[in-house]
Amino acid sequence: MAASKDHSTTINEIRDGLMDDWNVLENVFRLLQREDTFCMDPEKWGQQKIVPFLQPDKLKERINLKVRETENPSLAEIEKLCQEVIHYSVKTSHGRFHNQLFGQLDPFGLAGSLITEAMNGSSYTYEVAPVFSLIETELISTVSQLAGYKNGDGIFGPGGSTSNMYGMVLARYKFAPSVKTAGMFGMKPLVLFTSDQSHYSFVKAANWLGLGSDNCVAVKTNERGQMRLDDLEAKIVEAKARGGQPFFVNCTAGTTVLGAFDDINGAADVAERHGLWLHVDACLGGAVLLSHKNRSLLAGLERANSFAWNPHKSLGVPMQCSMFLTREQDRLLERCNSAEAHYLFQQDKFYDVSYDTGNKSVQCGRKIDAFKFWLMLKARGYGKYGHLIDHAIDMSRLLEDKVRQRSDRFRLVLQRHEYSNVCFWYIPKAMRVSKKEETPEWWERLYTVAPKIKEQMIYSGSLMVGYSPLKSQNFGNFFRMVLTCFPVLKSEELDFILDEIERLGEKIVI
Amino acid sequence: MAASKDHSTTINEIRDGLMDDWNVLENVFRLLQREDTFCMDPEKWGQQKIVPFLQPDKLKERINLKVRETENPSLAEIEKLCQEVIHYSVKTSHGRFHNQLFGQLDPFGLAGSLITEAMNGSSYTYEVAPVFSLIETELISTVSQLAGYKNGDGIFGPGGSTSNMYGMVLARYKFAPSVKTAGMFGMKPLVLFTSDQSHYSFVKAANWLGLGSDNCVAVKTNERGQMRLDDLEAKIVEAKARGGQPFFVNCTAGTTVLGAFDDINGAADVAERHGLWLHVDACLGGAVLLSHKNRSLLAGLERANSFAWNPHKSLGVPMQCSMFLTREQDRLLERCNSAEAHYLFQQDKFYDVSYDTGNKSVQCGRKIDAFKFWLMLKARGYGKYGHLIDHAIDMSRLLEDKVRQRSDRFRLVLQRHEYSNVCFWYIPKAMRVSKKEETPEWWERLYTVAPKIKEQMIYSGSLMVGYSPLKSQNFGNFFRMVLTCFPVLKSEELDFILDEIERLGEKIVI
Repeated sequence: MAASKDHSTTINEIRDGLMDDWNVLENVFRLLQREDTFCMDPEKWGQQKIVPFLQPDKLKERINLKVRETENPSLAEIEKLCQEVIHYSVKTSHGRFHNQLFGQLDPFGLAGSLITEAMNGSSYTYEVAPVFSLIETELISTVSQLAGYKNGDGIFGPGGSTSNMYGMVLARYKFAPSVKTAGMFGMKPLVLFTSDQSHYSFVKAANWLGLGSDNCVAVKTNERGQMRLDDLEAKIVEAKARGGQPFFVNCTAGTTVLGAFDDINGAADVAERHGLWLHVDACLGGAVLLSHKNRSLLAGLERANSFAWNPHKSLGVPMQCSMFLTREQDRLLERCNSAEAHYLFQQDKFYDVSYDTGNKSVQCGRKIDAFKFWLMLKARGYGKYGHLIDHAIDMSRLLEDKVRQRSDRFRLVLQRHEYSNVCFWYIPKAMRVSKKEETPEWWERLYTVAPKIKEQMIYSGSLMVGYSPLKSQNFGNFFRMVLTCFPVLKSEELDFILDEIERLGEKIVI
Repeated sequence: MAASKDHSTTINEIRDGLMDDWNVLENVFRLLQREDTFCMDPEKWGQQKIVPFLQPDKLKERINLKVRETENPSLAEIEKLCQEVIHYSVKTSHGRFHNQLFGQLDPFGLAGSLITEAMNGSSYTYEVAPVFSLIETELISTVSQLAGYKNGDGIFGPGGSTSNMYGMVLARYKFAPSVKTAGMFGMKPLVLFTSDQSHYSFVKAANWLGLGSDNCVAVKTNERGQMRLDDLEAKIVEAKARGGQPFFVNCTAGTTVLGAFDDINGAADVAERHGLWLHVDACLGGAVLLSHKNRSLLAGLERANSFAWNPHKSLGVPMQCSMFLTREQDRLLERCNSAEAHYLFQQDKFYDVSYDTGNKSVQCGRKIDAFKFWLMLKARGYGKYGHLIDHAIDMSRLLEDKVRQRSDRFRLVLQRHEYSNVCFWYIPKAMRVSKKEETPEWWERLYTVAPKIKEQMIYSGSLMVGYSPLKSQNFGNFFRMVLTCFPVLKSEELDFILDEIERLGEKIVI
């Protein structure tokens, strides 16, 4: 009986405390409004650390991570815990965070996020998500039109890797519908083609989808990072000769490192010649759909059977926001992915069930990812994002110029990048030599510079820029600076970035 | 030049307006604090509609969904738009929303969500997500221990369908590591087994993973909805005789419709006998890990090679929060899913890269789903959630009693459900007959009742309870009431639910 009494007391206490518990939201919202949470005021970037970095062991000492059976903190203690978590986290909306393919948040996107979280809906039926379903449909239709698809279909998913998988699964279904029921056993190997600079999600997907990474053929790239069409054609012919069945070609529109755009029209010619599905991984570069000036980077997109785009990268939409689009008709997406789960997607409803999206998706419950993006577009119109991505690209070209102006200290990986990525090496004072002294050993040593400066960046908290090697070109580590719609940078900020790398570069031991 | 001037003007305007744009958050937060957004005050449920339902065409007229190139609304207009979206959306945190396997939000979970959205991190490296990476590791370790795994491993993903796929992919990798590179071509069919009442995600996964739905064998269930072990054994033997290679058995802990728990120990015996991987889909029922009273529903879980759990269902964690856990050692999860993308997961970093989670995941960018759950556990201790799920189960048993007390008007599908689902038919006045008059035609007619009452529910906005058929038992539509940790219901509320179904039931024409 004692246990039972404890139980009812606990339940009553929780129930009676619930209305008060909601006050936690006010406290947390105040934390979010503090300047040092977002660090979005350019005036203050110089004084605010992007992250007060601690090594894992130290951080574990600083924040009490342990989860226990019994806890009874006050609201003030919970607020303090939240404050610590925020304090030691990376401020990705700090204007000097350029470490990933995403940057600062658009406030309208975050406003949309807050609503989505609070409404806690799920995108499978119109019944549970009436407004959000219509919004998803509207965005799929708008983006389809921008892509040049007449009656495009599509779905939002948790990220670019999944959106690319949607393309592969749909292509496979069209190529061999029997895979859906019988599987791939006994088939000649299905082979896909994507460049050696494309995203690793195709290799991961080849594993998951049962194709095997050996059947994900890496096509060579040219010196600008674009897929070589001659090699694509050659690899397709080779694969057939080996007894494989080519079914899928991926073009990348905005590679991860160089931001290179493959020639979609050229790849479409090859794909058509061999009867293959053409997919475009525009997860990064899809933003130029909204631009007049740079839209031509995606020339030929309307010929692709499908593409993926992550508005959560360049555009400042909060994570996660990824779209898969296809120009295929006759409900191909739904026929491919439906499991006839009539116990969930009842057909005897009192509304038009064609608004239920569950049968198109590989997920069941699905987070509402469309609304925050829609709210941004309603708040600014998509034209402004076109201008913002144009500006990011302009600033990248300007950064290249600035790098060139410091040619004794910096070296560009490409003289002209296509998108808003700018890749370069920094040459510390002690390594500045004449051109002929740049031996292979010198280069090997140069490749160790970026990681060491990165360590300095993190500890100083003043700037975060990523670095990367590029195996396909035999390049070791260099910096990859990525500009995004937000922050809306000025020319002076680009000087700061180079100055800061120089400043930190003199602190390292090489 | 004109275009260029327009462009700079636009960019300057956006940049200069950005600090003001952040004010949208204050407006939106005020909207979220309005009582009619969440409807969490039990005193007011009677006066608040869960949704003011409109058919799609009408809703499209009410909200201006169109996205255009040029927009210039005031903050007040944006706020009004948000208000409309909220107004016409389903209030899933209304205490009378029982339509899905999730219910009202826990305020601490929502507080965590707001922070996650604002910090806009991504879970791939410690570098970008120092605190959030440690929190994910901590939760994986805690839940592993609760499951009886010694050194469990795991990962958060976008939902239960993906978490179940992780189990299938990992099982396949252990069974035949060569699939990762060579694919499944030329192999004898790989076969998996799951009950005919299990979630449809296994069928969808069989399609995606290239196994084919024919190789996802449906095992018969007993009258309580549990997988029949004799049929499991027989189906495994049959599959082998047909030339297939069994590799994976799924047990469900909390089926979607009846909330049935399969006998994990019994299935483990069968799986061990045949050398098969045992996975447990505990997406729904995993909540009893936190309970003393009901933990035994998961007896044998420690023998499973892996399991999936969605804290976003019963527990009140905001969508999305799903965990995949495995007891396999030697970095099996990482070896299975890594793509050696050293250009993103550099090994020459200045911290212990074992904290980077990217190689375990099939995703690249990955939303921070662990923090909100962790904050809940820090705020209440996991023991309180154990009490809350016990209470939800107690209330479900009480609801069964109440249904039995109205046996002339209601009929239980099961006399005793195992979890917090309660399934029942309502018999409208015009259909009340003696037992012997309950002909097959009478039953067919009864199956049309739930959808019609559901329509009334939605239009009245007073209550939302789902309905479902159960093909494996040849049952037509019945109501499926699901209780969750929140709202913390009282007995009177259960009376309301039955009263309201009766009230609405008299409005329908059958």
